[in-house]
Amino acid sequence: MLGGGMTLTLDALNRMNPADFAAAIGDTFELASWVAESAATRRPFPTVTSLHNAMIGTVRAAPREHQVEFLSGHPDLAGKAARAGAMTDDSKREQASVGLDSLSEEEFARFHRLNDAYKAKFGFPFIVCVRRHTRDSILAQFERRLGHDQATEFAAALHEVFFITRLRIAAKVTGEGMPIVNGRLSTHVLDTDAGRPAVGVAIELYEFVGEKAHYIQSAITNADGRTDQPLIGGRPLPIGRYELRFAVGDHFRSRGIATGDPPFLDIVPLRFSIAEPEGHYHVPLLCTPWSYSTYRGS
Amino acid sequence: MLGGGMTLTLDALNRMNPADFAAAIGDTFELASWVAESAATRRPFPTVTSLHNAMIGTVRAAPREHQVEFLSGHPDLAGKAARAGAMTDDSKREQASVGLDSLSEEEFARFHRLNDAYKAKFGFPFIVCVRRHTRDSILAQFERRLGHDQATEFAAALHEVFFITRLRIAAKVTGEGMPIVNGRLSTHVLDTDAGRPAVGVAIELYEFVGEKAHYIQSAITNADGRTDQPLIGGRPLPIGRYELRFAVGDHFRSRGIATGDPPFLDIVPLRFSIAEPEGHYHVPLLCTPWSYSTYRGS
Amino acid sequence: MLGGGMTLTLDALNRMNPADFAAAIGDTFELASWVAESAATRRPFPTVTSLHNAMIGTVRAAPREHQVEFLSGHPDLAGKAARAGAMTDDSKREQASVGLDSLSEEEFARFHRLNDAYKAKFGFPFIVCVRRHTRDSILAQFERRLGHDQATEFAAALHEVFFITRLRIAAKVTGEGMPIVNGRLSTHVLDTDAGRPAVGVAIELYEFVGEKAHYIQSAITNADGRTDQPLIGGRPLPIGRYELRFAVGDHFRSRGIATGDPPFLDIVPLRFSIAEPEGHYHVPLLCTPWSYSTYRGS
Amino acid sequence: MLGGGMTLTLDALNRMNPADFAAAIGDTFELASWVAESAATRRPFPTVTSLHNAMIGTVRAAPREHQVEFLSGHPDLAGKAARAGAMTDDSKREQASVGLDSLSEEEFARFHRLNDAYKAKFGFPFIVCVRRHTRDSILAQFERRLGHDQATEFAAALHEVFFITRLRIAAKVTGEGMPIVNGRLSTHVLDTDAGRPAVGVAIELYEFVGEKAHYIQSAITNADGRTDQPLIGGRPLPIGRYELRFAVGDHFRSRGIATGDPPFLDIVPLRFSIAEPEGHYHVPLLCTPWSYSTYRGS
Repeated sequence: MLGGGMTLTLDALNRMNPADFAAAIGDTFELASWVAESAATRRPFPTVTSLHNAMIGTVRAAPREHQVEFLSGHPDLAGKAARAGAMTDDSKREQASVGLDSLSEEEFARFHRLNDAYKAKFGFPFIVCVRRHTRDSILAQFERRLGHDQATEFAAALHEVFFITRLRIAAKVTGEGMPIVNGRLSTHVLDTDAGRPAVGVAIELYEFVGEKAHYIQSAITNADGRTDQPLIGGRPLPIGRYELRFAVGDHFRSRGIATGDPPFLDIVPLRFSIAEPEGHYHVPLLCTPWSYSTYRGS
Repeated sequence: MLGGGMTLTLDALNRMNPADFAAAIGDTFELASWVAESAATRRPFPTVTSLHNAMIGTVRAAPREHQVEFLSGHPDLAGKAARAGAMTDDSKREQASVGLDSLSEEEFARFHRLNDAYKAKFGFPFIVCVRRHTRDSILAQFERRLGHDQATEFAAALHEVFFITRLRIAAKVTGEGMPIVNGRLSTHVLDTDAGRPAVGVAIELYEFVGEKAHYIQSAITNADGRTDQPLIGGRPLPIGRYELRFAVGDHFRSRGIATGDPPFLDIVPLRFSIAEPEGHYHVPLLCTPWSYSTYRGS
Repeated sequence: MLGGGMTLTLDALNRMNPADFAAAIGDTFELASWVAESAATRRPFPTVTSLHNAMIGTVRAAPREHQVEFLSGHPDLAGKAARAGAMTDDSKREQASVGLDSLSEEEFARFHRLNDAYKAKFGFPFIVCVRRHTRDSILAQFERRLGHDQATEFAAALHEVFFITRLRIAAKVTGEGMPIVNGRLSTHVLDTDAGRPAVGVAIELYEFVGEKAHYIQSAITNADGRTDQPLIGGRPLPIGRYELRFAVGDHFRSRGIATGDPPFLDIVPLRFSIAEPEGHYHVPLLCTPWSYSTYRGS
Repeated sequence: MLGGGMTLTLDALNRMNPADFAAAIGDTFELASWVAESAATRRPFPTVTSLHNAMIGTVRAAPREHQVEFLSGHPDLAGKAARAGAMTDDSKREQASVGLDSLSEEEFARFHRLNDAYKAKFGFPFIVCVRRHTRDSILAQFERRLGHDQATEFAAALHEVFFITRLRIAAKVTGEGMPIVNGRLSTHVLDTDAGRPAVGVAIELYEFVGEKAHYIQSAITNADGRTDQPLIGGRPLPIGRYELRFAVGDHFRSRGIATGDPPFLDIVPLRFSIAEPEGHYHVPLLCTPWSYSTYRGS
């Protein structure tokens, strides 16, 4: 038996008997162990990426009715299954990661309406790789994809399956040639009045849902003006709109610099969007008591 | 009879008989026509500023009990008088200008508590030149001044009377040597990717009350990247915290520049504070699709 | 008789008899009074611009041999005529303005070679509106235009005649609808560490000839951080490469700010080029003791 | 026998017999083997820094006449010895590193005059740690120190000996607790118009001697917009004034961006000074076709 936490090596998978192989990674493709069974016959795989490509290739090569059946096997997003908990562990974790397991009645109703409209039009549930999105961008994409024609949307759904399963494989299997599934959001604060990194500056990260900014986490700049950990790392960067807030007023006050009461700059917000979940977003703040600038850095 | 709207010339005031003089500007000092009566005897005044200085000098030179009586003649801030409308027209206009005539029950209660605590400690009502403040900074100042000792606060109250009456005189009298009572908040948007002013950029100005941003007004940049009118002008700049929001994403989209979906920069907020009501705050935005900067300019 | 200094009104020109008209502005088109004589018959002109367009139109409509003869009537650039002074007053002033009357033997020889090569290829002398160029860009253009074919170069020469005569007409005639012939180079210095314009900063303007920077002029920033006069104004901006040098180190030293010995920033150079003689180039400096930025502003 | 190139370990030094110890590192203190002999008696040293401190301590504790004799043992800067080659290998290398072995007759004469004036006033030759200076800052310091009184200058001379010998020890001995003797000058170029590092940008580094910029070296930005090696590293940063020049025009031209002929920005110079030879100077360029900024970063 394999718990979600444990990881497998690619070597082990290459050497297993077909049944164990399918048991080990079959559930990475929602309720479609046949994908793993077919992949088993094409071993050995030199890289984890090639393993995933083989499995996706199996889906793409399958007859249309198998593909539709496979897509239909996915749970509704924020659907009754989510509430009832009747989903695979992976699906539970993924939907929870973006708060879809704790929607208000109204939000739940909205998703319900969207799911029904989507299934009525396309014949399978709306599928999106939630780990690559904020709740905000999921809703935006839901509305947009409802406007697609059948062919466009069928391709879009398979593309999301690619992202979902790539993440599941990367989480489950270790070995050569791991697919790149993680991004990084980082910052640093430079006090260009002192010509030094700004140390001990409090930073807050917010995510937008509609016009509301939701608090995500805090950090403090270290001796190098950076945060010890990336603001987001070790996972895909959720597509969405963000705001970083820097307690610049406290920083200059601590240096004994007064620019009025209230100070000209106190909390400095930097508002930006993330569109590449696997990319690196470095969003620094260069500031003086009377000015600041930012840019997408590297 | 003089309506609030009409304005007087300094020459006319210098030539009036004492009774008309007092009738004309007596109410600029809340319920204290004696201030104008005394000033009448020191005419002629070469400048409007010297007229106001003479009136303030009269208050400063008056015996303490007259001063306290004078201060006590001022209405409570957001007090019952404000609701009942039992105030001079000037006081009504001033308190309304910052929304003190339309507080929620809770806000009203808070002001009520503060007023009582203040009067219990100092023996006269809390006086502040509301035209020089946002609601936020009035509350901040109220809390701070409650901590003063009697002497410090007595001086602070008279200083606010100076600001209040200077504005009233400047609104009522025209002539040589007008006191400077207005400030200016302006901006401009430069597209440093195109090396040109950014034309047609939508701008919104917000004022903070606590952590909430309240919408004040909108503007669109003209051919020079500026707004046709200052964002705030022709009046004191209310002390407080503000946020300008620029629709930068729309601007670059209109230039056919795509930086992802969503775009890296969409709405760019610039958050700053105003501490000098009679000052000039120029807060420009220099932007590219991937960077921006601001500063207090001139 | 009209001295170079005096100016004519368009009204006067419209009312003169043809002979006086031709005498008054005939020499604006080098040795080609027939241009003015023809224009005389098309009066009255509503604007100075339409007067100039009529004269240029006459040249464009003339038979090729007249055009070539007209072009051939222009003096060599930095040629023997320049040295001997055998040129119209306008040509003398124009060539002197860019130092073509005071070349070294070597420079003179280079121009001489270029002139001979040009005339040998095209059959008329090299014509350029020197007032719109630096010596550097004249040489660059000379080399480039030598590569043209006959048709391209003939058009280029007439285009330069358009610029030359437009300037001469604008200098000689005043009235409605003056053509735009002047540009403007300006700057301002903002100390974003103090949040104020930087006052009393010494600025030097240099023009590049090859890799050598030639000093042109100095200025000091006023109370608004600007120069009282534009760095270049009231004339076309000579196309070329420039460097502004700001004594930023002295400014911060005068504020008592020490950033090391020598200071991190002392003389800050901004190097840029001008390509639009009739444009406005605003090249500001935003600086702190440890950082600076510039941009083409408006 | 130890060649200049070989390095010793601290352990070996701690275990040598006194004679070998003195032979091994005696020449780090110019013609003063007695310093090493005395240090030999205080072994073992836990760190290379403590070894150097012990040797410097010996000098500081020595009788004044020994100290003066020691200082007098140093060769004239750019003196006859330098030309004749009559100096220790270390002194030769050091003076050559800043070009003092190849002065013009005029420069040589100037140093000669300064040396004579200095010795006449203080009784020992002018000593400076040339590896921490540019030729420009050596001359500046020479003039300044000539103005010192005897006591101030005596301390200044010993302080330079500290720097000189610290570098020699660090070059000769390896082991625990090495003294920090090296600085770093680095840059990176960010194209904030593209939101990416600027790749393949040609950079030149110049050092100022008076008003003349002397070329030092070139580099090209790599895929991260940085240079593969620091511009200066693995040695002290010579105190002095520098200019970095970036071929920004070529970069934007290669991206197909035209901003006029000539382009608004072509070669962008950043001029700055280094005052901390053991510090880290990061001087980046953020640029668009129409703007740029720089700052001392980290």
